[in-house]
This record gives sequence, C-alpha cells and structure tokens, in this order.
Amino acid sequence: MLVNGESGKLISIRDRGLLYGDGVFRTLLARNGHALYGQLHLQKIQHDSAKLGIVCPALPQLSDELDGLLARHPEGIIKLIVTRGQGARGYAPPHCAEPAHVWDVSPVPVYPVDWATQGIQLRVCETRLSEQPRLAGIKHLNRLENVLAAAEWRDAQIAEGLMLDAAGNVIAGTRSNLFLVRHGRLITPDLSRCGVAGVQRDRVIACAAARAIPLQVRDVSLAEVLAADEVFLVNSVIGLWPVRALADCRWGEFPFVRKLQQLDAQESRV
Amino acid sequence: MLVNGESGKLISIRDRGLLYGDGVFRTLLARNGHALYGQLHLQKIQHDSAKLGIVCPALPQLSDELDGLLARHPEGIIKLIVTRGQGARGYAPPHCAEPAHVWDVSPVPVYPVDWATQGIQLRVCETRLSEQPRLAGIKHLNRLENVLAAAEWRDAQIAEGLMLDAAGNVIAGTRSNLFLVRHGRLITPDLSRCGVAGVQRDRVIACAAARAIPLQVRDVSLAEVLAADEVFLVNSVIGLWPVRALADCRWGEFPFVRKLQQLDAQESRV
Repeated sequence: MLVNGESGKLISIRDRGLLYGDGVFRTLLARNGHALYGQLHLQKIQHDSAKLGIVCPALPQLSDELDGLLARHPEGIIKLIVTRGQGARGYAPPHCAEPAHVWDVSPVPVYPVDWATQGIQLRVCETRLSEQPRLAGIKHLNRLENVLAAAEWRDAQIAEGLMLDAAGNVIAGTRSNLFLVRHGRLITPDLSRCGVAGVQRDRVIACAAARAIPLQVRDVSLAEVLAADEVFLVNSVIGLWPVRALADCRWGEFPFVRKLQQLDAQESRV
Repeated sequence: MLVNGESGKLISIRDRGLLYGDGVFRTLLARNGHALYGQLHLQKIQHDSAKLGIVCPALPQLSDELDGLLARHPEGIIKLIVTRGQGARGYAPPHCAEPAHVWDVSPVPVYPVDWATQGIQLRVCETRLSEQPRLAGIKHLNRLENVLAAAEWRDAQIAEGLMLDAAGNVIAGTRSNLFLVRHGRLITPDLSRCGVAGVQRDRVIACAAARAIPLQVRDVSLAEVLAADEVFLVNSVIGLWPVRALADCRWGEFPFVRKLQQLDAQESRV
C-alpha cells in the first residue's frame, strides 16, 4: 500500500476523504503484471477529481506509481483513492489543499466460473439512488447508497443488485453498469442524474460506435429491462456478466453478448 | 486525538469511513471543561449508527472518553466519528465488522460578535440537496453536497449558505438547521427526505413544546422564508444566529428570537 507515494497503510483522521467523503476512486484489475485499461482509469480519476475541484496528481506520477505496484503485485485488485487532503475544520474546501492519494492492493475475488458464461442472478434493490446532477457519473467516496443496497441480501447465489432512481428508472448495479439488448440495439441508462460512469461502460459504448452497432443512452424502465432480449453488467473486476435471472424473467442464450465479446477480444489483440 | 480509545491521529486506509463514507459523526462544543448537551450528542450518534446498522460503542464508554478529553481540552470543538470499521473489499457491510471511533479536538472558531446579536448574512446556494429518505436526518459521512455548497462563496461577510432540495423546498444551512417565525409561530423544514437533524434543532423543538409555542415541521418554500417575521439558524458550535440579510430581504429586529434565548437560558440554569 502507498499513501502519498510512500509505503504505508494509514491516513490522517483529518483527511477530508474520511470526514466528508471528499474524494474519488477507481478500481483496476491487474493480470500478469499489467493493469487492464490502466490509462483509461487514470484519465477517469483525473476527470472526476477535476469535477470536484480536487487537484489530482499528474498522470506520469500515477503511471509510475502504478508500474511500481504492478512489479510487486502482478495479480490483484488495485484501488486508487484521491482525496482533497486535509484542511481547516468545516465543509468549505481549503484554498490551497494538498490532495492525498492512496494505492491499495487486494486479492482478485474468485467468482463461480459459469457466471461469466451462463449468466448471473440479479435482484432488484429496494434502496433507490438519489438524483444529484452535480455528482452524477463521478466515482466519488459518498457511497452509502451502494452500501445500503449491497446490505439488502446475503444469498451468495445472487451476484449483484440492480438499483433504480426514485422515479423508477433503472440506473445500474450496486457495483456495475448495465446494458440491455433489444432488436439488435444496445441500450444503457442515462447517468446524468445519478450513477457512476465506469471505464467498462465507456469501452462498450466505444466498441459499439466503432462497429456501428446502434446504441442509445437514455432512461430505461424496469419493464424494459425485463422485456430485453439480453441483459448484461460490466465492471473492471468482473469484466462482463450476462444476466440469466431477474425477478420472474429468465434468459438462457446470449448471442449478442458473445458477438460483443468476440469483437472486444479482437480489439484487445490489435 | 483518540482512535479506538487510544491516542493517535491516523486511521487505516481500509476503514469504510474513508472508502465509502460508511459512518456517522457529531460535533460538540466544549466550554469550561463541559461538553454542551454532550449526552444528547452521544444519544444522537447512537441513534444514527443504529439506522445504518453500525454497532456504536456503548454510551458509558463514550461518556468516559469524552470526560477524559474534556479534562485535557476544557475549551474546543470536539468531533466524534463512528465508522463501520474495516472489512472485506466491496460495498456489502461485513458480517462482523469491528466499528472504529475517533475523537478529535480543534480550537473554537472566532466569529464576529455581532453575528449572534445583530444577525448574519445568508445566501442561497445553487447546489441542491438530493432526496434520500433512507439517509435523511442522519449525520453521516457522505457530505459532498455540503462541500460543494460551501465552496460556492468566499466572501467572509457571508456567514452561511441556505440549501434547497431539487423541488425548491428550503431544507437547511450547509452546517446548520433553519427556523422561521411567522405570526408568533415557529416553522422548521421537514427533514424526512434530506438534511441533518441536529441536536440544537431538537432542543428548539423541545423548548417550543415545553412552552406551548406553536411549531410546525413541514415543507417550507424560499418565498415563505423571505416573508418570515424572523429567521434563525442553529447548530452546536454557533448556537443561534438570527438572519439579518437573505437575497433582497433585511431583518433588523428579532423579538421572538430574544424571547426564545431567554427561555433557553432559564432552562439551562435549572
């Protein structure tokens, strides 16, 4: 673990990341000494920091630190947190805050192998996401809604929970982004009022654009998800999970998902 | 500073308070070795912890630790944070989490003396509070909205910012609760969808009940605040600040506030 570039696993109790959740984070998957889409994650955390007015460490510094971590931990989940750092008491951001940044590495979780191939069981969470356009899309440290939603079930057979906003629009999984397929078209929820725009979501959108696959980013109802030809979730740790069960609906075949995975594999080989 | 009962000023980078804002806090004012309404604060943090399913340290333990702090720091702002502690990676709360708790002491801020007597200048913030009934009222660590709101102004003459919800209801100051007086009646915003229910707000409500002063807890529009006979803010550090200026409105006399302060002073002497 690295705290502000030095080996350590502690942070000040006066860090605004703890006091107010005043910071952002990203979770990367390391395989064979390589961080998957590492540069995209580092660009995203720069972008999210800027949205909160936090001066993120520069890309070359973060890249160097990441390389050092990968040399020591070729396999793992790598988490990067950037906070606004310490400052005077009170909510107002200090005029010249020194941001803090933290790297942490954990083992890669082991999921049942058939989740990626046969699909997962998804449930609808009762906890709704609140609407906050100023924070929507940003992977910030205010994640109590995700915590409450993830606390709703303990059945290990259920891989993920689906979160709606107060108006009933489907937004995302507790830790993943959602896509549906309908009549050969991809649809993913609009995240301009809540939710986190993940790197894998961006990648699916970019892949669709590059292959001229029609894709819509818009409001999606639960009824529309249940009526979809295929449904899948993405994030940087799980990659892609098709959904085989949600409420009373079952899906057994994922031809579109297979095609997308083939295209992505070709892309990655280039 | 105390971290889990021991002297220290650092916390694990894996504490869920930092990772997700998964915790609660309270801010107390210490004067002459006495924490004002200390027991109310400790009860509140117990209550808020329970709402998030966090096992808060027991009241006698917290009281003992607070007494120890007060002996060393008779004057100051005392902050108590309780988090869910550490656990496995991921949003789901660990089955048997060890909660963490942190005490910190800062100097009492010095405000212009006439703010408490002549009133303060208040501004309307652009940042809106999002609606989340599951978290409303709780003083939790997800406070980015307050941070964004407090970042909106730098003019030191403006003492506080007023926050509305997306529908335009007035909810609270960035760090205070709001009351208005209209025709001899107290009105304070309903906090069932957003906002923090502070100890001083509870005290004003209890004082009104004890003295048979009519009080309504309900939705309040900005127009209603601007049309009020008197407006005031409360929190544990500032005590009570009348509002002398908000938007184009000015208030110069605060007879109701004076009466309330007299009643409260009598109460405190008993």
